Amino acid sequence: MECRNILIEAEGDMGKALQLLKERSLLKVEKKKDRVTSQGLVEAYIHTGGRIGAMVEVNCETDFVARTDEFKELAHHLAMQVAAMPPRFISPEEVPEAAEIEVQADCLMLQPFIKDTDVTVQDIINETIAKVGENIKVSRCARFELGEL
Amino acid sequence: MECRNILIEAEGDMGKALQLLKERSLLKVEKKKDRVTSQGLVEAYIHTGGRIGAMVEVNCETDFVARTDEFKELAHHLAMQVAAMPPRFISPEEVPEAAEIEVQADCLMLQPFIKDTDVTVQDIINETIAKVGENIKVSRCARFELGEL
Repeated sequence: MECRNILIEAEGDMGKALQLLKERSLLKVEKKKDRVTSQGLVEAYIHTGGRIGAMVEVNCETDFVARTDEFKELAHHLAMQVAAMPPRFISPEEVPEAAEIEVQADCLMLQPFIKDTDVTVQDIINETIAKVGENIKVSRCARFELGEL
Repeated sequence: MECRNILIEAEGDMGKALQLLKERSLLKVEKKKDRVTSQGLVEAYIHTGGRIGAMVEVNCETDFVARTDEFKELAHHLAMQVAAMPPRFISPEEVPEAAEIEVQADCLMLQPFIKDTDVTVQDIINETIAKVGENIKVSRCARFELGEL
């Protein structure tokens, strides 16, 4: 129904309709960004051979969404992402003012997603927010590499 | 051969022989405690439902030992231990002087082992040291519980 209305609004122009659809769903995602996320999943990923391990806590609003395949897959991808590309911060807002960092490599949210480097980690989270209809946040992550201490 | 010699030393007394055997293997374990541990495994354990996750780095001396079933099992048990009983420190040596802690609950090494509360975590590590013949150390651990932040 929403697609139909958008197609009417775009006067039958498919490209314009897609653009409108994207803007709308992003708007919906933005509206959810202040909602409390107290449920979710702790997920871990051990790189083959046990030389690298990563753990993330990904939060959503309800236990129901935490149990969906979309959310589980997101949590799994995020754990893999942290194993593959060590972030120093979750989001740019966390970075102290004086810190000298490479913002796109060091902030998990701004990193290119390992399975599709055309989009960022924040993009794939937004995609899941749009799918499941709940706010989603990564509250923390840890990454151990053998012998790095 | 060693057992035979010990039995002779104990003059056939089985109880005394076992005691001697235990002392000898503990002595061997102590001798290994200064050896460098740069290999090992990163292991994670997610408690059913993904509400709690734990990750540990367990080190040994060679990659060969890291791949043995004994070492893998130890790493797995340690990850489960951290998930079940949140430690604040690895060993008592790490605890700052002024810290008010319950040393047996807060130090991983002194905790009762979850699968056999008659022994400590250090005991099961010592047991594995005696089995595999290499020094073993836990260098770090992390534990995430959903919504605790």
